[in-house]
Amino acid sequence: MSHRRLLDLRRGVLTRRLRFRDRHGRHLGVEQVRLVHMGDPHLAAMRTTFTAEDWSGALEVESALDGRITNSGVERYRDLNGHHLGPVRTGTLRDDTTVWLRCATIASDIRIAMAARTAAEPPVAVASHLTGPMAAHHLAVEVAPGRPAVVDKTVALHTSRDSAISDPLGAALERVARAPTFEALLAGHVAAWDHLWRRASLDVPDEAGRILRLHLFHLLQTLSPHTAELDVGVPARGLHGEAYRGHVFWDELFVLPYLNLHFPEVSRALLTYRHHRLTRALAAAEDAGHVGAMYPWQSGSDGREETQELHLNPRSGRWLPDHTRLQHHVGSAIAYNVWQYHQASGDTEFLHTKGAEMLLQIARFWAGATVHDPGTDRYRIRGVLGPDEYHDAYPDTEEPGIDDNAYTNVAAAWVLARALDVVRMLPPARAAQLCERIELHSGELARWEEVSRRLHVPFHRGVISQFDGYGDLAELDWHAYRARYGDIRRLDRILEAEGDSVNRYQASKQADVLMLGYLFSPAELRGLFRQLGYDLDDEQWRDTVDYYLRRTSHGSTLSELVHGWVLARARRADAWTYCQDALVGDVADVQGGTTEEGIHLGAMAGTVDLVQRGLTGLETREDALWFDPAPLPELSEFGFTLHYRGHWGITVRLSHGQLRIGVPSSAEEPIRVVFRGREWTVPPGDLLRLPTAKR
Amino acid sequence: MSHRRLLDLRRGVLTRRLRFRDRHGRHLGVEQVRLVHMGDPHLAAMRTTFTAEDWSGALEVESALDGRITNSGVERYRDLNGHHLGPVRTGTLRDDTTVWLRCATIASDIRIAMAARTAAEPPVAVASHLTGPMAAHHLAVEVAPGRPAVVDKTVALHTSRDSAISDPLGAALERVARAPTFEALLAGHVAAWDHLWRRASLDVPDEAGRILRLHLFHLLQTLSPHTAELDVGVPARGLHGEAYRGHVFWDELFVLPYLNLHFPEVSRALLTYRHHRLTRALAAAEDAGHVGAMYPWQSGSDGREETQELHLNPRSGRWLPDHTRLQHHVGSAIAYNVWQYHQASGDTEFLHTKGAEMLLQIARFWAGATVHDPGTDRYRIRGVLGPDEYHDAYPDTEEPGIDDNAYTNVAAAWVLARALDVVRMLPPARAAQLCERIELHSGELARWEEVSRRLHVPFHRGVISQFDGYGDLAELDWHAYRARYGDIRRLDRILEAEGDSVNRYQASKQADVLMLGYLFSPAELRGLFRQLGYDLDDEQWRDTVDYYLRRTSHGSTLSELVHGWVLARARRADAWTYCQDALVGDVADVQGGTTEEGIHLGAMAGTVDLVQRGLTGLETREDALWFDPAPLPELSEFGFTLHYRGHWGITVRLSHGQLRIGVPSSAEEPIRVVFRGREWTVPPGDLLRLPTAKR
Repeated sequence: MSHRRLLDLRRGVLTRRLRFRDRHGRHLGVEQVRLVHMGDPHLAAMRTTFTAEDWSGALEVESALDGRITNSGVERYRDLNGHHLGPVRTGTLRDDTTVWLRCATIASDIRIAMAARTAAEPPVAVASHLTGPMAAHHLAVEVAPGRPAVVDKTVALHTSRDSAISDPLGAALERVARAPTFEALLAGHVAAWDHLWRRASLDVPDEAGRILRLHLFHLLQTLSPHTAELDVGVPARGLHGEAYRGHVFWDELFVLPYLNLHFPEVSRALLTYRHHRLTRALAAAEDAGHVGAMYPWQSGSDGREETQELHLNPRSGRWLPDHTRLQHHVGSAIAYNVWQYHQASGDTEFLHTKGAEMLLQIARFWAGATVHDPGTDRYRIRGVLGPDEYHDAYPDTEEPGIDDNAYTNVAAAWVLARALDVVRMLPPARAAQLCERIELHSGELARWEEVSRRLHVPFHRGVISQFDGYGDLAELDWHAYRARYGDIRRLDRILEAEGDSVNRYQASKQADVLMLGYLFSPAELRGLFRQLGYDLDDEQWRDTVDYYLRRTSHGSTLSELVHGWVLARARRADAWTYCQDALVGDVADVQGGTTEEGIHLGAMAGTVDLVQRGLTGLETREDALWFDPAPLPELSEFGFTLHYRGHWGITVRLSHGQLRIGVPSSAEEPIRVVFRGREWTVPPGDLLRLPTAKR
Repeated sequence: MSHRRLLDLRRGVLTRRLRFRDRHGRHLGVEQVRLVHMGDPHLAAMRTTFTAEDWSGALEVESALDGRITNSGVERYRDLNGHHLGPVRTGTLRDDTTVWLRCATIASDIRIAMAARTAAEPPVAVASHLTGPMAAHHLAVEVAPGRPAVVDKTVALHTSRDSAISDPLGAALERVARAPTFEALLAGHVAAWDHLWRRASLDVPDEAGRILRLHLFHLLQTLSPHTAELDVGVPARGLHGEAYRGHVFWDELFVLPYLNLHFPEVSRALLTYRHHRLTRALAAAEDAGHVGAMYPWQSGSDGREETQELHLNPRSGRWLPDHTRLQHHVGSAIAYNVWQYHQASGDTEFLHTKGAEMLLQIARFWAGATVHDPGTDRYRIRGVLGPDEYHDAYPDTEEPGIDDNAYTNVAAAWVLARALDVVRMLPPARAAQLCERIELHSGELARWEEVSRRLHVPFHRGVISQFDGYGDLAELDWHAYRARYGDIRRLDRILEAEGDSVNRYQASKQADVLMLGYLFSPAELRGLFRQLGYDLDDEQWRDTVDYYLRRTSHGSTLSELVHGWVLARARRADAWTYCQDALVGDVADVQGGTTEEGIHLGAMAGTVDLVQRGLTGLETREDALWFDPAPLPELSEFGFTLHYRGHWGITVRLSHGQLRIGVPSSAEEPIRVVFRGREWTVPPGDLLRLPTAKR
């Protein structure tokens, strides 16, 4: 008769309320409260309360572990094999209180064991039934008006990849045996979420605040401090959906800057995940005739490239070659995060070891991937894809890839410059060892220096070209296409179905050149162009922003986010439109059905970081917090807390034209704050007030 | 005819040279060079060179992976089940170049996969033979005088616990396929060892120096930076022998202080190993009716207590109850290492999170384990064992354990005081969260404070008693027993076989009270006694040292080490004797046969640390390096390097009455040095010279 689902973000609890009427007209209310325990990640629990409204009698309840589970959450994958679990074995403990199930994933042979207890209130006998791949408890509970029955199910899960276990089944059985009551589990779970929320405290008013908390909820349940103990990356869809099959793309570029300032241990673990796959990235480069580390665009469990080689255009029904693996800029995203993590955390040990190893090998890849053009005495990077996946080749050519993608080249120049910085910063003994091990000689460093100053950035008509020759492409009749198709986010599919190709047009799926405005503050971007021998003035950047704004279809949820960010930084009136679009990306499923396949974690984290870093102009560099607020009129009052250099809970609040930074009392060192060129030292216990009206 | 084995410590290479004569009088020389790769821990390689001296012809060579391996390295365990591998599967790649073998451990179901390539020079055909649990390559090589044949075998190994893999067999096959030539593997391996040696540089002259380098070799091959990527602890016998079946005891107490100043990332990982098992230690305490964390004396893979409940006295043939699990002082060793690691590394993030959690729960255990004695208004800890395992009960009682072991109680008081320090040091937001989560209230902290000041330390005849009532035990006729038995290290077994019990005597297996002199500098120890309301003057400590020196049989390799350390600190002429005994513990197998079962890693690391910290008086506290040299006349000149707070390769050299501390040039901060009460700041690039003649 009714079904209502409530997700309590604060407490991390899902409640379902159902009301049934049977053919005899009898009414039954069912309330089910579920949690996956944030304090003990191996436990989950569910309480089901049955209320007979107008009858009394017995209810048969089955509480099972189901080994028939398949990956079938994404409708368009359902014709593909979704069976990933091998043979299932089940069992029961002698006293019937606990049933168990174990199996292994087919390809990777990860063993999974679950154990479940079921108990009722008022207490009843529990019988176990093992049938095929199901291990179930059967209970008969008595209900009557005013006398509801409560059934609690507690499940423990361990896999062969867990630390500190002997075998997974033994661990799961012991864990469930030791699990306390549902009430105690719930209390511990809520307390753990409370602790997470305190570390991620964010106070934004109204609708935007509510959506941002939903985004934080997804971020925190996907990448909590428990993640720091695992060998896992940032899944594109969080832990929410099966789209992209758990592959790891570049989303961490939008996620780690947030985590750095709240859960640095999680950032470190996510970078360590990449470091564990450095050997694979080196091998991939070698196999492709490159040097250094070539990280994959879609990274599989062991770091292999898992990007599909064909994709289906559902509009045309044609399978088309997929060249998106040429997005080597994913390596720059990793290098950027290495650098940012160190700047934010001050974790020198990491930078000197794993961080330097990755950064140097990614820099080496870029230097090796360039070719010198004697005509211009510039270095070029050819045959790649930028973030805009529409453009995977020049029109009417067979050869995949485009040349001198501005985002790729400028980011590569930045990576090379930071790699040279790191070599200079390393303690000499460490630098000697590292250079010896990876056979990095001064000649190669000299070339990096040279390339970092002479990478080619194409321009046309006074704006940065997305890639060499972009300005020569045809203009699309956006108006006509919008009129004809309405939603043209997947313009590539529309054109291909028409027998045309988006490669022919100045039309982008998402922010590409403008990604530079996400990675770098206006001052840093100017400096970077200067390093490359180009003069990028404010007007030129503004023209570039305008140029691409008019030529982007926003076929990725990241696109609005980046545009909102760039426009806010440029203090443009239309910034809020894009921020709004970014905010509702998943709650309104603006990509038309993709949210059902899983939320977009990069975009979600990015919106939170837009408030945290974008609107405050927060940068972490030179052992200081730098602020340069660019608040939106529509979001002029907000606050959040930071975890920075041993300080838990630094408060940042922007309101009424004032930025307030509070450092909690502690035995830690004072922090340094730089605000529009002036520096303050803020000792623990102090509150710094700064006026935000622009110079 | 001859067989010679050479272990090259510097390069980490084992060479065997054999010479055979067959029944026809033909001579064959065989040289085999083996390595387990220090650069890529998944690879091992072996080159075998066959030289026919006076004949020519073909040799059949078999190069195999052998799945029949058992744990049979310890003779006295051989009647027990040594089969730990489940069913073995083997296979070969289509072109025969690679054979593979996979299996799983029986109890813990860890899957292991190996893949091997074999190649000869001059090249010959390789055929694969799979027979039962063996996967072999067969080769026929031609040899003649002056024309030796070389056979190279390369093996890759992966287990299901490795990160960044899909399945172990796939990973092993890919790894071995990508492995370079033997020459390249050897070069990379030697370079990796060279880097390790540079981080562990130790310059001690003569025989002592040679032994210390052997000790370092074992330490480095057991606990290298690769260890930091694994969930492993400090095995009592390193990776050298099977005694104690890989159980983890308290040896890290002698290992981490060394690692902290060379490989802090390894220390952190070893402490994280303990943190992963904190839940288990909490459960163990609860099951035993205690609170807090009760870490096991012998820790199994998942942190369960694995101490045997019976042991055999081979002298009497009797199986006797074993109460050594009552050595709860292992928890204090973990707490001590948490504190020392933070002091040395400055890793505040670790202290604030995992470190604080362990330290507080161990402190809680101690506070809960005490009982208040209204008569003396002191707190007592009853029914435990100290490091001296001889005394597991009072004479003629059934109840196991002794009361108020001085080492246990003083260490517990120290743990409680440091836990209170940590609560004060934590950022308030973090302290609040942690206290909330572990339900730690101010009342409990007040009790810790009280217990930390009122723990009972027994004394008798002017010396610290090993435990309450120790002074009432009978005196042993040491002379008579030495005369009768010669080696009386296992006095417990001798007496039990005589129908007597070592529990009746003032006789210790190893340093117990004197362990306090290992953990704490004389000044710190005095302060600790003062905290407890006792006045411990130099004379009393000297008397205590003398008292136990005369009553210790040194039945553990740790005993001489600790005595050497304590005597050196007290500047005693007999210090060198004990240091010498500690040095030769394994090279001379002084325990009579136990080295064959595996080296004693704690004692080995301890001897290196005796030079590093013991003879220099080096302490790391208050963000400074403190020195107070106590060099032995027999070892008056030595040097080593340290890794400290981002500085790689700080040099410390003691010679000719001078201590020299050199900080290598770098961009890091200056270091602070405190020397006998005076403080210096040493910037990178500087060398500090200090006279060591005692005040």
